[in-house]
Amino acid sequence: MSDLPRRVHLHEEGPREGFQIEAGPIASADKVRLIEALAESGLEEVQCVSFVNPERVPGMADAELVARSIRKRDGVRYSGLWLNLRGMQRAMRTQLDIEGTIGTSASEAFSVRNNGKGLAALREAQRETLAFCVDHGIAVTRGIVTTAFGCNLEGVIAPATVVERVAQMLDTMAEFGLRLPILRLADTVGWAQPNAIAAVVGAVRERWPELRLGLHLHDTRGTAMANALMGLQMGIDTFDSACAGLGGCPFAGHTGAAGNICTEDLAFMCEEMGIETGVDLDALIGCAQLAEEIVGHPLPGKLMRAGTLGRFRH
Amino acid sequence: MSDLPRRVHLHEEGPREGFQIEAGPIASADKVRLIEALAESGLEEVQCVSFVNPERVPGMADAELVARSIRKRDGVRYSGLWLNLRGMQRAMRTQLDIEGTIGTSASEAFSVRNNGKGLAALREAQRETLAFCVDHGIAVTRGIVTTAFGCNLEGVIAPATVVERVAQMLDTMAEFGLRLPILRLADTVGWAQPNAIAAVVGAVRERWPELRLGLHLHDTRGTAMANALMGLQMGIDTFDSACAGLGGCPFAGHTGAAGNICTEDLAFMCEEMGIETGVDLDALIGCAQLAEEIVGHPLPGKLMRAGTLGRFRH
Repeated sequence: MSDLPRRVHLHEEGPREGFQIEAGPIASADKVRLIEALAESGLEEVQCVSFVNPERVPGMADAELVARSIRKRDGVRYSGLWLNLRGMQRAMRTQLDIEGTIGTSASEAFSVRNNGKGLAALREAQRETLAFCVDHGIAVTRGIVTTAFGCNLEGVIAPATVVERVAQMLDTMAEFGLRLPILRLADTVGWAQPNAIAAVVGAVRERWPELRLGLHLHDTRGTAMANALMGLQMGIDTFDSACAGLGGCPFAGHTGAAGNICTEDLAFMCEEMGIETGVDLDALIGCAQLAEEIVGHPLPGKLMRAGTLGRFRH
Repeated sequence: MSDLPRRVHLHEEGPREGFQIEAGPIASADKVRLIEALAESGLEEVQCVSFVNPERVPGMADAELVARSIRKRDGVRYSGLWLNLRGMQRAMRTQLDIEGTIGTSASEAFSVRNNGKGLAALREAQRETLAFCVDHGIAVTRGIVTTAFGCNLEGVIAPATVVERVAQMLDTMAEFGLRLPILRLADTVGWAQPNAIAAVVGAVRERWPELRLGLHLHDTRGTAMANALMGLQMGIDTFDSACAGLGGCPFAGHTGAAGNICTEDLAFMCEEMGIETGVDLDALIGCAQLAEEIVGHPLPGKLMRAGTLGRFRH
């Protein structure tokens, strides 16, 4: 366990992940309320909305309205998600904090389903986005490989495939003289288990020992916290997560519980293990309870029901 | 990860753990139906009922009726739980498979609450039970230390305290010339995190390197699967679990989600990691869905909603 990080960075995606998949309409004001509560809990970053096609993701049709309505707090990054340059340009017209993103998929079929284009076309689009970022002085700080641990459409994904995709991504960046500061490996559809985390993280690390890695985990089959532990044991210090375990990709090609790893459960585990998170667990529990109130049905988070251990310890 | 076991033994406790805590009355026939379905799934052992005071645990008032009604299947152990000799004698009058049990608590206060007596009185009662087992030729094969990772009543439990309790337990057994084949460490109230698993398992192992250990985990705060992973990494090959994540102790002194680690989620993770479980995951998913139907409210298991990966693989 000597590789455990001393501090973990949690990138909250609940508002974006959660509200993209909810069946019922969620009031824009409620989205804003949750984002503002999350930003009060000590989280460094809250991903607020996605700028995607509202016909494909109706829950994000109010992205601009939500982004405009947030009362921003100093010291917190308010980010957005987009899948192409048009989405990024929409985001730039709001008050959100803009960082260049480069995303690819380990699975060609998932790329077609999620991004509307295959990997070759996606790479062309990335060049357009990177050129735009360079022209506008926007740092490209975020890279992600989706379905890195398996795909419902293509099945098993070999670690070597992930390495190949990362190589392409880094090559594309290099064409513009850019280096990626952090790469996220996403278990988009909940295939990962700890050995797969070790295999994929290990394969990418072996090729690029200096590349900082993060994990984007879903708890589709109950393995997210074990996967996070394996990541922590390998020194991973950056995790995407969603309060109350909100979330799920509308284009994943499966039904059922598909939420992200739960922010407050993960933060609790880290804090109990002596790994700093910077968050106030009780404030996060309040956010999770608010999220449940907003969506109107039970969410999978556990700590929000049981509470922290502080009151038992004195 | 070289200590991962090749095979894991899952001791199903869903019927006992689950139905002891459900608010509404559960029909005895439904309990039998679930027990029989679980026994068809490849599990080696199903804990069916507890023989405890029906005034304290009304959900177990029909223990004899349930135990009597099960159509037993060859190759499966049907076990029960009891907290004293009287309970064991009740169990012996049924068709359940009887094995001697010795249980203690890391926490004096929890012992009083759960067993109705403090640790000194509990030890006296254990002597009575052990003498009875010796007289009747009943093997004492199961030992458990509850609240081994923390207690809602006493707070933090030091690993040294657990070692002390285990020493007492083994000494008590030795008085009767008995040796314990397996000791379970129970996170009765969901305090554990992976470092605590490592610390307590490590402390007990250091003192008794040859003593086989099992884990009884609750997912009260979302850490159960990570705790199981740490156990697996330390070579633990025996886990108590509950289908669909049923369960929780009525005397734990807390409210909220408190179910056991979910059998099918744990089995899925093990199988995906290449660790044999002997269970049919799809059959277990059917059991979890049946459990949910029987209790009439959502249960926390994940795999039961998402399904296994087999259909995506070919």
